[in-house]
Amino acid sequence: MAEPALEGLIEALRRLPGVGQKSAQRMAFHLLQHDREGAQRIAHALTTAVNDIRHCERCHTFTEAAICRTCLDDTRDQRLLCVVETPADQAAMERTGSYRGLYFVLMGRLSPLDGIGVRDIGLQQLVSRAGDGSVDEVIVATSFTAEGEATAHVIAEALKLRGVKVTRLARGVPIGSELEYVDLGTIAHALVDRR
Amino acid sequence: MAEPALEGLIEALRRLPGVGQKSAQRMAFHLLQHDREGAQRIAHALTTAVNDIRHCERCHTFTEAAICRTCLDDTRDQRLLCVVETPADQAAMERTGSYRGLYFVLMGRLSPLDGIGVRDIGLQQLVSRAGDGSVDEVIVATSFTAEGEATAHVIAEALKLRGVKVTRLARGVPIGSELEYVDLGTIAHALVDRR
Ligand SMILES: [Zn+2]
Ligand SMILES: [Zn+2]
Repeated sequence: MAEPALEGLIEALRRLPGVGQKSAQRMAFHLLQHDREGAQRIAHALTTAVNDIRHCERCHTFTEAAICRTCLDDTRDQRLLCVVETPADQAAMERTGSYRGLYFVLMGRLSPLDGIGVRDIGLQQLVSRAGDGSVDEVIVATSFTAEGEATAHVIAEALKLRGVKVTRLARGVPIGSELEYVDLGTIAHALVDRR
Repeated sequence: MAEPALEGLIEALRRLPGVGQKSAQRMAFHLLQHDREGAQRIAHALTTAVNDIRHCERCHTFTEAAICRTCLDDTRDQRLLCVVETPADQAAMERTGSYRGLYFVLMGRLSPLDGIGVRDIGLQQLVSRAGDGSVDEVIVATSFTAEGEATAHVIAEALKLRGVKVTRLARGVPIGSELEYVDLGTIAHALVDRR
């Protein structure tokens, strides 16, 4: 297999996260053999997305306009700000139907080992926005992992200095789960946070 | 998340084999956030491959010319033909360094449930090529799965009608494996095919 176009495609597909040599090869063969229209569609979608998608000036999520629809929606509670790590987390929050405030999307989380610092998560923009008097409460909804917790801590400290009220999503036993199968750390937290 | 370019990209990435909604989302976010150059490279490689890659007129493998380099290599034994399912299988065969004949690549295997019949694997082309008197032996190296075995059977029957000698790769215990951990069917076959 010394066909440059094929080798080039396999090499390029390896840029996708979680895709190694074998998967890339399988993807290339599948597209070329069974789904050339799909290949063209992916190529077109990638080009369109790279050209059209940027970050919202207010909340940093992906958007095609300067400011995203959520930020422009004036039926939402402008005095409530929820901090999430990714647009996927934001989407999960929206699907609950229980939140009507605005968002700030970090587009990542602090990870010193990967070289991701406060500048990469836009901490300064978050602090100026939340600290300008227009926001009553910031709900920090970063994930409950070591990196997510560290990120939440840094954000909370920075916001408290500006006198902003900061809360965190409750940790506890997931709905529908039997206690027997829930990890002990979760149970311990649920006990401390009992209400 | 109602950004058409982002939704379109996630939807398109789901055309890749083994990629569901979650992976597609993760890939899209990763490319847009951390590797836009990679996204452009993938788009370009896909377009190039779709435009340039076709099937070799003789062996059906992927190639950029009408006839692939392997088929044009006159230092190879023209009287020996090895039938494999995919270019990846062909590449594995080449890496052994023990085969110097030519190939016929089925680009799949018989799978009635998936609607893949003898026409899709080019059986007729294989039979006319192997049966024209220029080939002494056809080594059927399809995989040792139910579908691969069925494919080998159909090929062998068709070629035998033309009086072509047909062989199959030996089944047996893989080099380096301890008998204890080899599956029983393999041991049974290795016993029958002992030499
Ligand atoms: Zn926004
Ligand atoms: Zn060829």
